[in-house]
Amino acid sequence: MIIIGERINSTKKSIGKAVVERNAEFLQIEARNQVAAGATMLDVNCGTLPAEEEPAALKWLIETIQAVTTVPLCIDSPNPAALAMGLAVHRNGKPLINSISGETERFKQVLPLVKQYNASVVALCIDDRGIPSTYDRSVEVMVKMISDLLDNGVAVQDIYFDPLLRSVATSGSTVVETLKLMDTVTQRFPGIHITCGLSNVSHGLPERRHLNRSFLVLAMQHGMDAPIIDPCDPTVRALVFATNALLCKDKFCLNYTKAFRQGLLQG
Amino acid sequence: MIIIGERINSTKKSIGKAVVERNAEFLQIEARNQVAAGATMLDVNCGTLPAEEEPAALKWLIETIQAVTTVPLCIDSPNPAALAMGLAVHRNGKPLINSISGETERFKQVLPLVKQYNASVVALCIDDRGIPSTYDRSVEVMVKMISDLLDNGVAVQDIYFDPLLRSVATSGSTVVETLKLMDTVTQRFPGIHITCGLSNVSHGLPERRHLNRSFLVLAMQHGMDAPIIDPCDPTVRALVFATNALLCKDKFCLNYTKAFRQGLLQG
Repeated sequence: MIIIGERINSTKKSIGKAVVERNAEFLQIEARNQVAAGATMLDVNCGTLPAEEEPAALKWLIETIQAVTTVPLCIDSPNPAALAMGLAVHRNGKPLINSISGETERFKQVLPLVKQYNASVVALCIDDRGIPSTYDRSVEVMVKMISDLLDNGVAVQDIYFDPLLRSVATSGSTVVETLKLMDTVTQRFPGIHITCGLSNVSHGLPERRHLNRSFLVLAMQHGMDAPIIDPCDPTVRALVFATNALLCKDKFCLNYTKAFRQGLLQG
Repeated sequence: MIIIGERINSTKKSIGKAVVERNAEFLQIEARNQVAAGATMLDVNCGTLPAEEEPAALKWLIETIQAVTTVPLCIDSPNPAALAMGLAVHRNGKPLINSISGETERFKQVLPLVKQYNASVVALCIDDRGIPSTYDRSVEVMVKMISDLLDNGVAVQDIYFDPLLRSVATSGSTVVETLKLMDTVTQRFPGIHITCGLSNVSHGLPERRHLNRSFLVLAMQHGMDAPIIDPCDPTVRALVFATNALLCKDKFCLNYTKAFRQGLLQG
């Protein structure tokens, strides 16, 4: 199970402020806390900064986090220049680029970075026509994008497919269709990873945490093995361990009981 | 969605005491609270009383609950004499007998009550050889028992199949196999209900609530439409509404938003 900690993201006000002020200590505490809470990878994002400042900020952020953690980082930017600066200083094992997509321009710009740094890559289910609005179109976009990555020499186990969930408030069938898409991608491309943020699913609805939690469990059953979550949310973290145990992916519940002993199941 | 409130069960110390003392007010508060929290049916069980006292106690309990609620009751006893006394006084619509099974003696004793009272019935996946220990045996026991009920004129929509979950601590694959069994029973007998207590799954493990919650979500995806839960547990209750919405069984999330307005999503 891969757990990608989502907290170091400049859309969060306190993180954005710390990046702008180069407050290393604050960000290092966030990094350490997430790893202690079970994160096996940390997303780092400073995309709210002005475009010309983002590359240098991302480079500084990665160096700052690496000074206190050894887990690989998920380098999160739509900006190839920022990705390149970040990748150049990444030292914590294999980096995860977040993200490439089926959009022609983005694919062309990000692929060389994946190759150059022997990185893993999050592959968003979107192409030049936008986010697919039907299951069939999603399959079409997904198959073309993954096939293109494989044809270009990216190993299947280095691809983290992200189905780009919609909110259930705007599309009642989005979850059912996304789960089906997850089944399809794992059947078609065995060994691929599936990642997904949880919170899109509940956009526009009240008390969103319940929908996010439920989606986490459902998606794990359909092959999502690399969720992007806040590992410091004790209920979500415990659900990950519990669901892994129930789905027979945790022999003799060893990870579950270990997490208990580490105090990680108190949510 | 059917939600069977589990709280009125004499294995809970306070409930057992209230039944023995014929403390109607205490039990009526439990009943009202569960209905206010979303229960659409209430389980009533006083099986910890001495066998000779149980029938009269169950009759009294049912009359007591019916004095303050209109939801149907799930009359819970392995004792046909107690079931008969309870059924004779049940007035809240169609009663649910909990339970019949594939055991020859029990089937023979409970079936006439199902027929006489035009009741629904929980059908436990067990026969004279005990609880099946493999998926194939479970299917065999399930198919024979359900077929026997149908052959005896019980309508499929009056049957609540209970797969009798084991603990994931003793059998790592129990959940995966139970979910498969749920798929099989709904494919083979469309219109059947599936019920299940949640807590068996986590027996012997720490911080059991996480496993119970996760199992609830997984089982709902596999057709469990009548969980036996504590509706007063706000996290579990909210997960039921959330999962229903995600699985596209709650058009426009109307029940979810209604539950929010009723203050039922605060878990």
